[in-house]
Amino acid sequence: MTRPEVRIYEVGPRDGLQSEATLVSTDDKVRFITLLANAGLQEIEATSFVRADAIPQLADADQLLPRLERRPRVRYSVLVPNARGMERAVAAGADAICLFTAASEAYARANMNMSIDESLAAFEPVVAAARSSGMWIRAYVSTAFGCPYSGEVDEHAVVTLSERLLRLGADELSISDTVGVAAPVDVRRVVGALLAAGIDPQTLALHLHDTRGTALANVMAGMEVGVRCFDAAASGIGGSPYAPGAAGNLATEDLIYLLDREGVRTGVNLDGVLDAARFISEALGRPISSRVGRAGPWPA
Amino acid sequence: MTRPEVRIYEVGPRDGLQSEATLVSTDDKVRFITLLANAGLQEIEATSFVRADAIPQLADADQLLPRLERRPRVRYSVLVPNARGMERAVAAGADAICLFTAASEAYARANMNMSIDESLAAFEPVVAAARSSGMWIRAYVSTAFGCPYSGEVDEHAVVTLSERLLRLGADELSISDTVGVAAPVDVRRVVGALLAAGIDPQTLALHLHDTRGTALANVMAGMEVGVRCFDAAASGIGGSPYAPGAAGNLATEDLIYLLDREGVRTGVNLDGVLDAARFISEALGRPISSRVGRAGPWPA
Repeated sequence: MTRPEVRIYEVGPRDGLQSEATLVSTDDKVRFITLLANAGLQEIEATSFVRADAIPQLADADQLLPRLERRPRVRYSVLVPNARGMERAVAAGADAICLFTAASEAYARANMNMSIDESLAAFEPVVAAARSSGMWIRAYVSTAFGCPYSGEVDEHAVVTLSERLLRLGADELSISDTVGVAAPVDVRRVVGALLAAGIDPQTLALHLHDTRGTALANVMAGMEVGVRCFDAAASGIGGSPYAPGAAGNLATEDLIYLLDREGVRTGVNLDGVLDAARFISEALGRPISSRVGRAGPWPA
Repeated sequence: MTRPEVRIYEVGPRDGLQSEATLVSTDDKVRFITLLANAGLQEIEATSFVRADAIPQLADADQLLPRLERRPRVRYSVLVPNARGMERAVAAGADAICLFTAASEAYARANMNMSIDESLAAFEPVVAAARSSGMWIRAYVSTAFGCPYSGEVDEHAVVTLSERLLRLGADELSISDTVGVAAPVDVRRVVGALLAAGIDPQTLALHLHDTRGTALANVMAGMEVGVRCFDAAASGIGGSPYAPGAAGNLATEDLIYLLDREGVRTGVNLDGVLDAARFISEALGRPISSRVGRAGPWPA
């Protein structure tokens, strides 16, 4: 198989589902993730080990993860908020972990009830445990392009936080447009500042929400400045439950349609993604919300 | 006033409304167009002088046009299919006319019941009359990026048709992604072929549908290759009634959000466009369908 030029990091089962009100059964989650892997997705964020009462949709994390079919090239990552979550993630057999913090102090406090500093302190035992288990570590730099509470976010705040996360031990940073406000000029500004600070573009991913229709324009800008990993959620499910006005994640099928048409190899099959997208939309009891899901691929 | 760097050509009242099933009253159309002009839009395609039974939504063209408030910098254009339509357009006081044909023979036959050659022959008396009235002439090159009946469209067909339309007397060509399939690579391919043939980029506009989420990425690519005019419809209304699976036009508010954020001057006020978009959505009895219309501008 030819090596993909761009990595697609699927966030539907975690970031997508966590903000959906309709509860999805563990069986349906297993099926959804199986369909995603069948489509060629090799990095799938499967669930979150937050407290069960914090996000009821993901309360079955301990049961879900052991049920996923292991495949040679597929990595299942999980969100881990603290040392207790890390114990559960290890017990359940996670391949990789994700940490979540924010470039905006106001968002950190509203979303995590912690300052940015406190969130980094809480990560230390998690990262130590992940390292000793040989796990890959990803960190979300949320609100990197704007905060629903404090407005514009300075790129230097993104750089400072990113440097701290890398020093802490993160292997990849997902620079996130949590409220979906970025335009290409913002991608160049923020990613440009990260590169100017000496951060390797191979450690960067972009996490885009299509709230204002700019996500694919931002993907193009991201590729131009050297980003080679993009987050997406099948069917465009989710959004941020804490970010007023935020629409869903960039839909995986919309991203794959663009990259296929651009001739960029991803190793992901569009029809396979559409199968997964249709399945999870049905499980959520609503029509598929992505553009390509509604219009169909082309040529048909 | 600083000169806009990019022209926004509003197609909501014609291309948008013509494929909407809910009939809008002439009063509401006048109000819609007034709100669009209030927002700073200077080029508004107001209606179409097709036969009244062909598009019932636009059957009031003769009554609508004389009711529009004339403003120094606002040009009202109208679609004209034939010599009879041209007589009506002149009588009603149109400032400019639009011709409509296709790069795909299959689409021309399905949509206009004419070959491409026959459509050009039908334009000749129309263009002659427009010239003698000093009217500006725009021509739509539809299905320039793909045809719902015959699939991919060769860029040489777009170039050949464009050259013929310019020789015929068109002042501007709107290169149209009727079914909304283009990616940035296609914009560069098709516009690149037009420029390579010696066509002045100042005579080109891009007419994009956001069917597969790529419209704003395509706008960015269009600007990169020198296009300085983009079509859009407030609230993203419309689509092509003849193109299966086609979603609405690129929403004017999504386009203005992107260009504002990019620092590109358009002379168009986003809040004003949102007023027009909300008004026409209410008149159509449905929620606003654009991304920015649903999420709101940013910062709020």
